[in-house]
Amino acid sequence: MLDRLDEVKAQVATALDGALAALPEGELRDAMRYACIGGKRIRAFLVMESARLHGIADNAALPVAAAVEALHAYSLVHDDLPAMDDDDLRRGMPTCHVQWSEATAILAGDALQTLAFGLLTDETIGSEAARLSLIAALSHAAGASGMVWGQSLDIAAETAAEPLGLKAITRLQGAKTGALITFSASAGPLIAGADPTPLRDYANALGLAFQIADDMLDVTGDEAETGKRVGKDDAAGKATFVSHLGLDGARTRAEALVAEAEAALEPYGEAAGNLRALARFVIDRDN
Amino acid sequence: MLDRLDEVKAQVATALDGALAALPEGELRDAMRYACIGGKRIRAFLVMESARLHGIADNAALPVAAAVEALHAYSLVHDDLPAMDDDDLRRGMPTCHVQWSEATAILAGDALQTLAFGLLTDETIGSEAARLSLIAALSHAAGASGMVWGQSLDIAAETAAEPLGLKAITRLQGAKTGALITFSASAGPLIAGADPTPLRDYANALGLAFQIADDMLDVTGDEAETGKRVGKDDAAGKATFVSHLGLDGARTRAEALVAEAEAALEPYGEAAGNLRALARFVIDRDN
Repeated sequence: MLDRLDEVKAQVATALDGALAALPEGELRDAMRYACIGGKRIRAFLVMESARLHGIADNAALPVAAAVEALHAYSLVHDDLPAMDDDDLRRGMPTCHVQWSEATAILAGDALQTLAFGLLTDETIGSEAARLSLIAALSHAAGASGMVWGQSLDIAAETAAEPLGLKAITRLQGAKTGALITFSASAGPLIAGADPTPLRDYANALGLAFQIADDMLDVTGDEAETGKRVGKDDAAGKATFVSHLGLDGARTRAEALVAEAEAALEPYGEAAGNLRALARFVIDRDN
Repeated sequence: MLDRLDEVKAQVATALDGALAALPEGELRDAMRYACIGGKRIRAFLVMESARLHGIADNAALPVAAAVEALHAYSLVHDDLPAMDDDDLRRGMPTCHVQWSEATAILAGDALQTLAFGLLTDETIGSEAARLSLIAALSHAAGASGMVWGQSLDIAAETAAEPLGLKAITRLQGAKTGALITFSASAGPLIAGADPTPLRDYANALGLAFQIADDMLDVTGDEAETGKRVGKDDAAGKATFVSHLGLDGARTRAEALVAEAEAALEPYGEAAGNLRALARFVIDRDN
């Protein structure tokens, strides 16, 4: 699985470099490129593996993987802004607005979102119907009923009178991180015109497990390993899976979700080994 | 022409309301709706009229008109942010971040862009090929080689050692405002699979005339009429068409561009009366 992840990382880096090289040079493009450096590329991996399971060649799935990573990079750049989470460290480097400026970070994020949708029109992906279904699905996952909605709930929670309950956190994270993860895992069936239900179920469980692991890393993690600030949730008195369940309870819940994710892959049999390994990876990672 | 503009305004308001109604309720959606209120709807008008000239029914062109206005609204919300142009008045109302918050304004802008691309997947627009060509064209016009690029040049000019020359301003505005105007006027041919060249030439001249008129309004305009702050360029020592050409020279240049825009409509004959009238309208407007 880690070999394939490394392969995907290299493929996505090349694809994003190519897309960025076609843009006018200048600080905007430099900031976009900066924002795309690094990352675990879990979303790209989900795209590439879900595509492989549906007989889609790597080169056809690659623009989709690049699109989802460009969109993810935009969301991180905007989430890190002073008016939002006000973070200064991301992927082990200064955040985009610290490295460049707030204005450039806003614009780089904006243009990365635009780029993501442009990448999904790439003919190599497949039929016109396939590309349109991906674009519609990404718009749904990324916008005001998906990722951005989740982020707005997160911002609202900061000033709410009562800390969020477990159900509300689950709903929030399902939108904020889950929607894009589910889109990524559905990419293969969407390109192939196949039923996305099994991979959607897998991704819903995986996305939640991923977020629980993130909450745990904020408590147990190391800044050098994670490449971002830790201990922020507790310092802010923020309700998280860990604040509700405790570290042991959170770990137990994450394990159960991994089992759920693995069970959803049943229809794919042995071929889904990499996705099974990924589910384990997201809760065992130290960054 | 003004009757048709009023008709388009009403159609677009209904289409945007419908798209927003499908989203989860809350501050994010309220802010998105707020950002979409008002405006001259010139871009929507260009979409609807260019579609009509190519035999496309209003209901097919409407999602495209709504998309371009959602995208335009996003760009205004982000341009008005404190880290960008720091404006407090827009379309006669407090800007989005003043009315809500900076975080909500950033997110509302983000989600309006996502919505714009989602709207372009609407089946009523026409063939799959038509929708994909619109999405590719919008990504090109709105991103890091179009509108956002222009805005980044504008931000950079504020801190540049030398004020911009006329050629640099023309290039900047061609990207910042021109690209989306040109996309709008090309929508009809793109849906119909026809040659967009005449309408593109029309829109390039129109976009520049529009910006020259904007620069003139910043000098001669009234805050109550324009619905936004005036006198900002001069106060900031910003190089504009007016600072280079003077008011009379700018007027002469705008008139020449209107003539150029009108000439480009030749192939459409009498049918392009509304677009001819629009070209005159953009330089005679007082808001």
